Amino acid sequence: MADPGTALPSWNDTPTRRAIVDFVDLVTTEGSPDFVPLADRVATFDNDGTLWCEKPMPVQLGFILERLAAMVEQDASLREKQPWKAAHERDHAWLAGAVERHYAGDDNRVKILLAGIVRAFGGTTVEDYVAQSHAYVTGTAHPTLGRPITACAYLPMIELLRYLEANGFTTLIASGGDRDFMRAIGEELYGIPPERVVGSSNALSWSDGDGGGSIVYLARPDIFDDGPAKPVRIWSRTGRRPLVAGGNSNGDVPMLAWTGGGRPALRLLIDHDDDEREFAYTSGAEAALDRARAEDWTVVSIKRDWATVFG
Amino acid sequence: MADPGTALPSWNDTPTRRAIVDFVDLVTTEGSPDFVPLADRVATFDNDGTLWCEKPMPVQLGFILERLAAMVEQDASLREKQPWKAAHERDHAWLAGAVERHYAGDDNRVKILLAGIVRAFGGTTVEDYVAQSHAYVTGTAHPTLGRPITACAYLPMIELLRYLEANGFTTLIASGGDRDFMRAIGEELYGIPPERVVGSSNALSWSDGDGGGSIVYLARPDIFDDGPAKPVRIWSRTGRRPLVAGGNSNGDVPMLAWTGGGRPALRLLIDHDDDEREFAYTSGAEAALDRARAEDWTVVSIKRDWATVFG
Repeated sequence: MADPGTALPSWNDTPTRRAIVDFVDLVTTEGSPDFVPLADRVATFDNDGTLWCEKPMPVQLGFILERLAAMVEQDASLREKQPWKAAHERDHAWLAGAVERHYAGDDNRVKILLAGIVRAFGGTTVEDYVAQSHAYVTGTAHPTLGRPITACAYLPMIELLRYLEANGFTTLIASGGDRDFMRAIGEELYGIPPERVVGSSNALSWSDGDGGGSIVYLARPDIFDDGPAKPVRIWSRTGRRPLVAGGNSNGDVPMLAWTGGGRPALRLLIDHDDDEREFAYTSGAEAALDRARAEDWTVVSIKRDWATVFG
Repeated sequence: MADPGTALPSWNDTPTRRAIVDFVDLVTTEGSPDFVPLADRVATFDNDGTLWCEKPMPVQLGFILERLAAMVEQDASLREKQPWKAAHERDHAWLAGAVERHYAGDDNRVKILLAGIVRAFGGTTVEDYVAQSHAYVTGTAHPTLGRPITACAYLPMIELLRYLEANGFTTLIASGGDRDFMRAIGEELYGIPPERVVGSSNALSWSDGDGGGSIVYLARPDIFDDGPAKPVRIWSRTGRRPLVAGGNSNGDVPMLAWTGGGRPALRLLIDHDDDEREFAYTSGAEAALDRARAEDWTVVSIKRDWATVFG
């Protein structure tokens, strides 16, 4: 197995890091009763707030905002209508509020936002959508951290992905974020290729035509990969139950709970408790933190467990 | 690259085999203008009638039939109701007719059948369903070929999968058949693991509980992975457009057409023209054969191109 000393250099030598290393030793030591064969070593990670920074708002919202604002430039009648109004006026608080209310169980604003999103990308081919997403992420700075968005991935988590892979794990992203948006940057940021990205998506449709036809987004939602949908989407994609999962919010609880089954499991919950190097918040993670404490999941304190946050 | 002479021994030395070998040479020769990097070498194959025998009825129908008949034993009120009546009376013609009518554009009988199927497996966990599927396929003989169902895979196609993999391709099953049914035997029969099987599925639901909860089938359909759904499902799973595809029916036309895009493509259409060694039929493949001839797709004649059909 890979040497944890060199594989996880951005992790402090704390009980959290030892729990990770001990778990990997447990399931990869041949002859041990908890040994797990290669094919069943599956590790799934949420994206926003788990692999990269999600504050002051998820990166994807910035991308959507830019597209919605561009639509207002084309069609002034959208200016007084949400979510175009918020996009046009750069009203980030309205948009961030949609996510916060969703975590609190109120999806009314999310529905208004989603209605805008499906219109924003209806008719776009999947290839164009991926190209637009890539251009946004690689061409935009984080609004407050003073670094490019491509430098907002958590270095300790990237090291963890490599450490798990070096120990025979297949790593996947399993996130409420948009699947094809994450695919656009998954390889560059995390070394995770498109086929290992599970996420939300609007409905798609293939139609025949030149060059074998194309697949375009329809103006309606299909999958919202959050909460109880996460285990279902992971099964649909892999036909396997993960052994390792990482998340940071209430929407990750079903994925974290389902991980392992009858076998040992490593369940990591990122606790955003470092307002100096990143952001301190528990909003949207209350139930996850409670369950983690009750069931002895491994809580990762950014403040105490990470020597470095960003690369 | 792998030597085609040793890699495809069950293929006769015909223009079809040469087209396969030439295509693989074309996209794997470094420095050639048509060279395709490893990550983009994706090959997708239909299952029923493409990788294994689908006559006198698809294998999965036999599995469903057995389950429906068992339901009649538990509940006599189902005896006069389709599809339980057909299952109880071993009326294979009624069931095969559902598939034939589907290919002809009439889905009424398929709908009756699907309504039975969703009831048949509602409440079953995914793990139990896979175990039941595996037990059926490995414990049942083909009704007319005088061999176990596990020996009804086409040997030339298995050789083709290995040949493509030896040349850096990622192979996938992309079939109208049930995803988790195929997963149960995909590794044993074809060397294709669960995460590379794309197919139809009833809706799934995770619920919390002991051992991290479980995922069960709901009594309603979700995905029917046939026709224009095939390109969409392949994209959803992989985020890539295949370079090679193989099919045998009208339902494979969108997948075959979509393959390649602006790049070279190998589109294989299996023509069931050998009533001595297998079955001769074009029902359900008329439009596919027409399009293959019109657009110069590679038609595989079982009679002429395969030296051996079954292993």
